[in-house]
Amino acid sequence: MVVIPPELTSMTVVSQRYTMSVLVTGGAGYIGSHTVVELINAGYDVVIIDNMVNSCKESIKRMEEITGKTIPCFEIDLLNKEALNAIFQKHNFSIVVHLAGLKAVGESCDLPLLYYKNNVGSTLNLLEVMKENGVYNIVFSSSATVYGIPQELPINESHPQGSCTNPYGQTKYFIEVILHDLSKTDKKWNMILLRYFNPVGAHKSGKIGEDPNGIPNNLMPFVAQVAIGRRSELKVFGNDYDTPDGTGVRDYIHVVDLALGHVAAVNKVEENCGYKVYNLGTGCGYSVLDMIKAFEKASGKSIPYKVVDRRAGDIASCYSDASLAAKEMGWKAKYGLDEMCQDLWNWQSKNPYGYKKKENED
Amino acid sequence: MVVIPPELTSMTVVSQRYTMSVLVTGGAGYIGSHTVVELINAGYDVVIIDNMVNSCKESIKRMEEITGKTIPCFEIDLLNKEALNAIFQKHNFSIVVHLAGLKAVGESCDLPLLYYKNNVGSTLNLLEVMKENGVYNIVFSSSATVYGIPQELPINESHPQGSCTNPYGQTKYFIEVILHDLSKTDKKWNMILLRYFNPVGAHKSGKIGEDPNGIPNNLMPFVAQVAIGRRSELKVFGNDYDTPDGTGVRDYIHVVDLALGHVAAVNKVEENCGYKVYNLGTGCGYSVLDMIKAFEKASGKSIPYKVVDRRAGDIASCYSDASLAAKEMGWKAKYGLDEMCQDLWNWQSKNPYGYKKKENED
Repeated sequence: MVVIPPELTSMTVVSQRYTMSVLVTGGAGYIGSHTVVELINAGYDVVIIDNMVNSCKESIKRMEEITGKTIPCFEIDLLNKEALNAIFQKHNFSIVVHLAGLKAVGESCDLPLLYYKNNVGSTLNLLEVMKENGVYNIVFSSSATVYGIPQELPINESHPQGSCTNPYGQTKYFIEVILHDLSKTDKKWNMILLRYFNPVGAHKSGKIGEDPNGIPNNLMPFVAQVAIGRRSELKVFGNDYDTPDGTGVRDYIHVVDLALGHVAAVNKVEENCGYKVYNLGTGCGYSVLDMIKAFEKASGKSIPYKVVDRRAGDIASCYSDASLAAKEMGWKAKYGLDEMCQDLWNWQSKNPYGYKKKENED
Repeated sequence: MVVIPPELTSMTVVSQRYTMSVLVTGGAGYIGSHTVVELINAGYDVVIIDNMVNSCKESIKRMEEITGKTIPCFEIDLLNKEALNAIFQKHNFSIVVHLAGLKAVGESCDLPLLYYKNNVGSTLNLLEVMKENGVYNIVFSSSATVYGIPQELPINESHPQGSCTNPYGQTKYFIEVILHDLSKTDKKWNMILLRYFNPVGAHKSGKIGEDPNGIPNNLMPFVAQVAIGRRSELKVFGNDYDTPDGTGVRDYIHVVDLALGHVAAVNKVEENCGYKVYNLGTGCGYSVLDMIKAFEKASGKSIPYKVVDRRAGDIASCYSDASLAAKEMGWKAKYGLDEMCQDLWNWQSKNPYGYKKKENED
C-alpha cells in the first residue's frame, strides 16, 4: 500500500510515473474499491484520491491483496485545489473516474451547506484542475435520485431530472448540469454520467465490501448487520405502498456489475464519445420483503423485522430501463439477487465490523 | 468614500462600528447602487462588499453624493472566505442583501465553471460565514430566468423552476435550491428570494445608472448607447415571434422600483418571515419595438435598428404576476415606461461613458 501525503508527491511520484493512468476519486470507498479492482483487472493503471472521510486505508491494502498490484493513494480533499493540482502535474491521467462525494440522504437534509460545498464545490475544483492540465475525459457517479419521484417505470435516461427530494440528490443533479454545460464549451470533453440504482453485494473474495459509518442508511447493509448480530431487528419503513407486497421496490445491482459498468464507460470514453448518460441497473425491481427473503436464504439466518411508518421522501417503486448502456457500451448486469446476497453475506461474515476489528473502532 | 482593504479592517472598522447594519454584496453594481441608496433613504446603515469586477469605486462616490452619507465599501471577493469572515466579525450585520454575482448570459455559456464557482461557490461561502456569525437574515437577488421557458403567462411564483437555458440562469436556480434546503435546517433563517424581471432606468439624479463593460448584453443599455452615439445601430433579434409586433416581449421594471422592492424585503425579513419568494416586475409586457419607440420619445433621438436572426435561448414573451409582492410586502412598481426611458436617458446623456470619462478607460 502506498498512501502518499501530498507534501511528498514530488519525490514519491516521479519514481512511479504512470503513463495514461486512471485517476479514481473516492477510490477507497465502497463503489470506488470495487471499481479500482475491476479497472486493474481490465489492465488499467489506477491512482486513487480519497479524503478517507467515509473510507479507510485498510480497503486499499485489501484491493492490493486482490489485484497483486501496488495502488498509489493520495489522501487529500478535492477542496484542496493546490494539492489536487500537484497530483495532476506529476501524473499523466488519461481519464478521471469521479466517485468522491458525501452520500447520506438524512445528513444532507441536516447539513445542506456541507453537502453542496463538498460535492459540488469539490467537483468544480476537479474540473478546473482537469482543464488546466489538459485532461478532458471523465466518468461521473451520478444517481437514480436525479429522477426525483418517477413519472413512469421503468425509468430511462430521458425521464425528467431535478426536483430531487433531498440535498444529496440535488448535488448529483447540479453536477450533471455543470458537466453538461461544460461539455458544450469544448469538443475535447468526453463525459459519461452513470446513474446508479441501488448497489449491493461485495467482491467474491470477501475482502472488500460496504462498510458504513454508524447506523446504515441503506437496506442491505442494515440487513447484513442484523444477520451478524450487530443490530437486533430491521425496521421496514411502510408496507402500504402501491407495490405487490406493499413495501418499497428498488432496482438492486451487484456492486461488481456496477464496477464493470465503470470499466465499460472508461472504454467508451476512450472512443471520444462526447457527452453521454447511462443508467446502471438490472431493470428488475425487488421489494424490501423480497430482499429479506433472499438474504435469509443466502445467509441461513433469520432477519427479524418490524414494520414502521413510511420514511419522508421515500417513493413506492424505482427501477431502471438499462437498455441504453447495453446498446451503447455493451454492458449488462450479470449477477442476480442470489449472488448479491451471497456475496454480501460472505463479506459481512468474514468482516463482522467491516474493515474494523471491533464495533466503534476508529 | 471609504474603500477599506480587508487587511485594514480591524482598525478602520472599530471606529465605525455599525449597530445592526445591512450588508449589501455587489453593492457597487447597477442594482446594488440603487438598492444601497434606497436602503439609506429608508434609514438603514449600509456596508458594501464588492469585488469591483463589474463595478467601480466612482459609483460609491456618487451614492455618497446622493445620500450625503459615508458608505463603507470592502473590496473583497466572496470566494475569499477569511476576508469575508473578518468583516462579519467586526460588524453587527442584521441582514445581508446578496446581489453579488456574474450576470452575462453569453459569457456564462463560454465559461460555465467560472459562473458556477463565482455565483454558487461564493454564495456557499457567504452562507457559511453568516451562519458562523449568527446572521440568519438574507435577501437574495434571483431572476425570472429561473422559470426557464414560460409555460403560462403571467408568471407567478409557483411556475415550475429549473431547466434554465444557460449557466447564468442555472446558478440563480441552484442558489434558490440551496437557500430553500438551508431554510429547512433552522427556523432562525429568514430568507426572501426576489425574482427580478428586466431592470432598466436609473436614479432620478442621473448620478448612478447601468454601466456595462464592453458591448451591452441587454436591450436598453444598448439603445441608450446608440442614442448617445457610441453604437451605430441596434440589432433586433427576431421579429417573427408569436407576439403582437413579432419582437420579444419582456417585463421592464424601473431600477428604483426594484431597489424599493429590496427595502420592502428587508422590512419583511425583520418580521421573521421565514422563507419567501417574490417576483419583482410590473406585470406589463412591452416589446422591443415598444421600448425603442418609448426611448425615442424620451430622448428625442432616433434609434436606427436592423432586424437580425433570433438569438439562441431567447423566448417570445415573459412577464410577471407581481401581485404576491403587493399582497405580502406592500410593494408595487410605481414608475411606468416613460419614466424608465427618461431616467435612462438622463443618466446616459450626463454620463456618455458611464462612470468612465471616455471609451475604453480602465
